[in-house]
Amino acid sequence: MSAEWITDMGGPGFAHIYRVDALLHDSQSPYQRVRVIQNSDFGRMLVLDDAVQTTEGDDFIYHELLAHVPLCAHPAPRRVLIVGGGDGGLLREALRHPIEHATMVELDRAVVDVARRFMPSIPGAAFDDPRARLVIDDGIRFARESSEAFDVALVDSTDPKGPSLGLFSSAFYGDLARRLGPAGVLAVQSGSPLYQQDVVAMVRRHMRPHFAWVRTYLGTVPTYPGTLWSFTIGSQARDPAAVGADEVASRLAGMATRYYTASRHAALFDLPPFVREAVGPD
Amino acid sequence: MSAEWITDMGGPGFAHIYRVDALLHDSQSPYQRVRVIQNSDFGRMLVLDDAVQTTEGDDFIYHELLAHVPLCAHPAPRRVLIVGGGDGGLLREALRHPIEHATMVELDRAVVDVARRFMPSIPGAAFDDPRARLVIDDGIRFARESSEAFDVALVDSTDPKGPSLGLFSSAFYGDLARRLGPAGVLAVQSGSPLYQQDVVAMVRRHMRPHFAWVRTYLGTVPTYPGTLWSFTIGSQARDPAAVGADEVASRLAGMATRYYTASRHAALFDLPPFVREAVGPD
Repeated sequence: MSAEWITDMGGPGFAHIYRVDALLHDSQSPYQRVRVIQNSDFGRMLVLDDAVQTTEGDDFIYHELLAHVPLCAHPAPRRVLIVGGGDGGLLREALRHPIEHATMVELDRAVVDVARRFMPSIPGAAFDDPRARLVIDDGIRFARESSEAFDVALVDSTDPKGPSLGLFSSAFYGDLARRLGPAGVLAVQSGSPLYQQDVVAMVRRHMRPHFAWVRTYLGTVPTYPGTLWSFTIGSQARDPAAVGADEVASRLAGMATRYYTASRHAALFDLPPFVREAVGPD
Repeated sequence: MSAEWITDMGGPGFAHIYRVDALLHDSQSPYQRVRVIQNSDFGRMLVLDDAVQTTEGDDFIYHELLAHVPLCAHPAPRRVLIVGGGDGGLLREALRHPIEHATMVELDRAVVDVARRFMPSIPGAAFDDPRARLVIDDGIRFARESSEAFDVALVDSTDPKGPSLGLFSSAFYGDLARRLGPAGVLAVQSGSPLYQQDVVAMVRRHMRPHFAWVRTYLGTVPTYPGTLWSFTIGSQARDPAAVGADEVASRLAGMATRYYTASRHAALFDLPPFVREAVGPD
């Protein structure tokens, strides 16, 4: 092919590829290569190293799932911590809830700056919301050293390698559990249940010592290789899968979500047998 | 890249690619190019022209969805018609039900022969089952000219172009409805709700004159581009989405399905709002 294509590997012999209709940004931060491309099928796409992080076309799926499921699992969230999530999409969705404040701790300022400049619809007005606070810092250190209290913590990380590896550790989940207190809820992206089954299982194993309930739920993210994607919640005060559709509906009232809905809340946790087999029992 | 890769386009600027570790078969039938490749991530893969049809790694998802959902939607299926489905995976799943016979009408004998020889786990023993009958013929003509009666018809087609175009027509659905009678159930693969929304909408429009209920359900097929995949059911005697989990559980007893389960039956029909918007109301 003559045009340039982005290749996002899902395994040694499998990838998603995207044609680069225009390369809008390409820089090397201290942590990773940061690119924004224009693509005919998914609009503008944020690519970190060679992995697609988010796109204008389907960002709502991943961000709705990682924000609303845990926020609805907590009975009354007021204080939200986001670790990672530099593109701002997760912050945008969290701020749709009537929370008091959201603190976002992102390691790489370049991701925030590039998303705000080249993909403004992803953060929307989130970074200008008076309830939002952006901290450029290592989320692992923040979780360990901060004395702030939160109700819900959301971890929007890249794959478990390089600077993100510690975001999948038991020590980190323990530090977050201490920040969260007795009704706290933690949600993390926990990888592909198709080709990263070890990641899903590791997240569950590392979260279990620190939370009363640990549950995994699934969504379909078309621009992540394999696309069936897992998220894992740790919760102290109630089973996140057992929150009723009526309660979720009242929490989502007026939000006009496009992927996650109240009636689908419990079903997201009802794993197909082949996934359940791979990740083990709750 | 030095190795050969199969490129399965999902749109003008988006594709899934698979490394060809070995090319096990490559022939041109009267209808299409038929290839079987060996791939590190999905095992053996059947590729018709340039589209992946089924793989050893994930065939169970598509075939369970297209067989069990409609078979459980019918109160007591005895006679099953399969149009297309040459690889035999759908026949295999249908025969897990206590039906009297299944007739498979496939246009391209090469697909059957190649699947049986190079991907024997896909049909399994289905073609040797005394309840199975294979007819090499045009399914459109069969539906129009046959006088046989069936309870459930399943259409496992390629995309709506070339010889498959007629399998998406209102005339064909009408002919099938006449073969099915007053309690009949028809299920078809109806394309990607991401990049073939016109196909999903067309199938629903073409089915509606012939059936009392028309419902669309979704699954995630990792080796179809976009992966979120739609199936549409026409039903005469009852709403397929309203079949209770208890009834589905009793119908699936002992089957050990890997993707579809009784508790997930209703949830498959509960479309995310962005899909509902694209395909219109039921």
